[in-house]
Amino acid sequence: MMSAPATTLQDIIAHAKEYGFVFPSSEIYDGLQAVYDYGQNGVELKNNLKNVWWKAMTQLHDNIVGVDAAIFMHPLTWKASGHIDGFNDPMIDNKDSKKRYRADQLLEGKAELLTNAGKEDEANALLAKMGKLLGDEDLEAVRELIISENIVCPVSGTLNWTEVRQFNLMFSTKIGSVADDSSTIYLRPETAQGIFVNFLNVQKSGRMKVPFGISQIGKAFRNEIVARQFIFRMREFEQMEMQFFVRPGTEMEWYNKWKETRLSFHKAIGLPAESLKYHDHDKLAHYANAAVDIEYKFPFGFREIEGIHSRTDFDLSNHQALSKKKQQYFDPSIDPETNKPYGNYIPYVVETSVGADRLFLATFCNAFTKEMVGEGDKQKERTYMKLHPALAPVKAAVLPLVKKDGLAELGQEIANSLKSSFRTVYDDGGAIGKRYTRQDLIGTPFCIAVDYETKDDNCVTIRHRDTMEQERVPISELKERIGKEVAVERILEAI
Amino acid sequence: MMSAPATTLQDIIAHAKEYGFVFPSSEIYDGLQAVYDYGQNGVELKNNLKNVWWKAMTQLHDNIVGVDAAIFMHPLTWKASGHIDGFNDPMIDNKDSKKRYRADQLLEGKAELLTNAGKEDEANALLAKMGKLLGDEDLEAVRELIISENIVCPVSGTLNWTEVRQFNLMFSTKIGSVADDSSTIYLRPETAQGIFVNFLNVQKSGRMKVPFGISQIGKAFRNEIVARQFIFRMREFEQMEMQFFVRPGTEMEWYNKWKETRLSFHKAIGLPAESLKYHDHDKLAHYANAAVDIEYKFPFGFREIEGIHSRTDFDLSNHQALSKKKQQYFDPSIDPETNKPYGNYIPYVVETSVGADRLFLATFCNAFTKEMVGEGDKQKERTYMKLHPALAPVKAAVLPLVKKDGLAELGQEIANSLKSSFRTVYDDGGAIGKRYTRQDLIGTPFCIAVDYETKDDNCVTIRHRDTMEQERVPISELKERIGKEVAVERILEAI
Repeated sequence: MMSAPATTLQDIIAHAKEYGFVFPSSEIYDGLQAVYDYGQNGVELKNNLKNVWWKAMTQLHDNIVGVDAAIFMHPLTWKASGHIDGFNDPMIDNKDSKKRYRADQLLEGKAELLTNAGKEDEANALLAKMGKLLGDEDLEAVRELIISENIVCPVSGTLNWTEVRQFNLMFSTKIGSVADDSSTIYLRPETAQGIFVNFLNVQKSGRMKVPFGISQIGKAFRNEIVARQFIFRMREFEQMEMQFFVRPGTEMEWYNKWKETRLSFHKAIGLPAESLKYHDHDKLAHYANAAVDIEYKFPFGFREIEGIHSRTDFDLSNHQALSKKKQQYFDPSIDPETNKPYGNYIPYVVETSVGADRLFLATFCNAFTKEMVGEGDKQKERTYMKLHPALAPVKAAVLPLVKKDGLAELGQEIANSLKSSFRTVYDDGGAIGKRYTRQDLIGTPFCIAVDYETKDDNCVTIRHRDTMEQERVPISELKERIGKEVAVERILEAI
Repeated sequence: MMSAPATTLQDIIAHAKEYGFVFPSSEIYDGLQAVYDYGQNGVELKNNLKNVWWKAMTQLHDNIVGVDAAIFMHPLTWKASGHIDGFNDPMIDNKDSKKRYRADQLLEGKAELLTNAGKEDEANALLAKMGKLLGDEDLEAVRELIISENIVCPVSGTLNWTEVRQFNLMFSTKIGSVADDSSTIYLRPETAQGIFVNFLNVQKSGRMKVPFGISQIGKAFRNEIVARQFIFRMREFEQMEMQFFVRPGTEMEWYNKWKETRLSFHKAIGLPAESLKYHDHDKLAHYANAAVDIEYKFPFGFREIEGIHSRTDFDLSNHQALSKKKQQYFDPSIDPETNKPYGNYIPYVVETSVGADRLFLATFCNAFTKEMVGEGDKQKERTYMKLHPALAPVKAAVLPLVKKDGLAELGQEIANSLKSSFRTVYDDGGAIGKRYTRQDLIGTPFCIAVDYETKDDNCVTIRHRDTMEQERVPISELKERIGKEVAVERILEAI
């Protein structure tokens, strides 16, 4: 038996567009770089993923609740978080071509050339030197290094470089119309701060007791210099984050618990164990004392889909310092060492942060299946989306064998009886084999064929997407049979 | 029997904050004007509203699908839509105080003073004159009118006014880092254009036949000069829109159909008929040939929660002209007058557009209930949120009578058995009466009391929120009994 060719990112992008999952943004105006729109099937898949994450990260836990903070926040938020001072990329311009580059990427490009020429030691030395200079923020020395390495602008071919400057990745805009009162604000570069500034509002109004968590789904924005790999790295993207507030000293216990729980979530939605792995961070961000990524095996290699970070009290402490509002929790539980309550402290935070678009891409890549079916001369390639039934954009398609003899009306009646319970479509256009294929290509788990016998036996044929097996089922049982299979509870109970 | 005092907007704002529905944004930094965050109960109520709208406007219709377009769009989009040239407010500055005002609001303030002084005719004449000058865009004459009416700056008290200028309400930012390639883009002031630019992508990839609709939920942004009335008018807000594409000439039929269908939606989610009314537009927007608002009776009067607009082919025609990409549909159905297919045309559009935050506020105001309960000396005020069970943030609360004797464990076990099906909390803190009240205040429809008899009869007492009636129910029936009541299908079937 022949095997189908390996899936490339190009296959994924083409399928996503052709079948209404992801379109380039503003495509009629030739698109907006690194921004995408979700189409009619994409929005359903993405909403289903968001919904199951939300339930898994709120409803299943007595001690986790949600919030939905605005994208616009007070600008001091980003001072406290470090984004105003530290969320930068080092940029350099060539004075002749007027082209701008990331200084570190110019040096990395040189290192790659050296490596390809067998000079790996030189390459590593160069990268180490660059790392040190950037760490020290010695931007003048970075510029000198570019010149001494003879790195010319690919366009002008000259060494006529400007100084290196830090370029902030936050998008800014002006709010307020009154001339002397309008101020610069930022589109949030991460959703986490919307949780931190509401820590006490939620804790008090919800009578929450540490340890507890706050979950949030929302858009974030980064003016990425190099945005690429389809929806993997976009300038506008969506995060699904949970910040878990714990007593200082207990953070590693919770870090390990969440590391496990989150991996089991990804398995429960259908990502196979062999396509997932942990990647511990060697170098920690300034706010973290432990950090791990969960990576998925994309067509372009293992890449992060979720980060679990022990953020210490970095954020709450900075907000307290800047706002002059105490961000403390009074813990009445008894410390066994002192026999007194733990009392007031700023909680530590363990964060779980998933990129919703990356999870979409992982789910999409994993579901995209090409198989050779049939034998000998009749062997042919079959493409279908092997999505978990609870995630599929359309749950059931009702397909009358023919339009005439009342089968169309009967099919519509069946579809109508199901559609307030789950997304059901009706399709009577073309040969039934073609209609099965259309549903396969968007991942519909159940096709319901209505034939002449249906009028006599009140039964229909359910055709299962993955196995293509067919079974005869009474119409009266459809809602319950399919309803159970497509229910989000099935995923929640598997975590 | 005494009646409870009328609800004010202040009551609503206070309740929303105290019980975790809506917080001022970035409150620890003293807030960001006209921006709000949804708290732990608010996010659930808002998500439930969005979910039921989404299902009502996609799943229930064979010919409507969704999209989720990015907030960032190509800037030509806003040229085509008219927002770059026409989405302005007339502003004027006082040179002494440096304060900026909306010119039309200064004149309206003067008209109000005249009305209050019994000079209604003068007031109306002033407003009519202003309307004409603004319509003619004669901004110099608007300035002269302000001065001739002797309208002074409330701060400086002088007539030292600048010229009147148009101030665009779109937020702008810069995208891209390469110096000569970065461009000004806008945060979308409406979600509708994300649908229009994807019209052909969806029509073709989804094989849609006119008439068909595209639904979308998403954030939009307007730099409102006067943003007020809590979450009614915010600078960042969320829209729920459906654009329905029809054959030109049939738009009034669909306009009337959607006008009815949308009103019945608002009734189905629990808004009473007497608090809803239509308001036909006297003056139509430049893109519309018919328009009506559905208004809800807020504490501050009847105000728009949804607009239904017949937008003609204004948007698609402009996109076609600017993008040079045909935005046509080939209609194969037969015109009875010519006996030929209708053929190629640019569809007309009927739009339904709800403010998600306004629908939240209407639902919240409607649910907020103060009642006098009890008799004589024992009469007291009771406050609860009379939310439709399918919309309530928490569906069920399990409350053991006491913590001891195994009742706590039994209660937790019951809560755990329900929570993958619907949001269930467990609460054992304080007297049971207080715990009922806590659930009333957030609108939980079902409290489940676990008592000593439960251990013997495997039954619990369900206490109904609105009637406070209690009934004994076997534990084994809870999931199905409550599950049915809180299911979104109940609303969908009532539309």
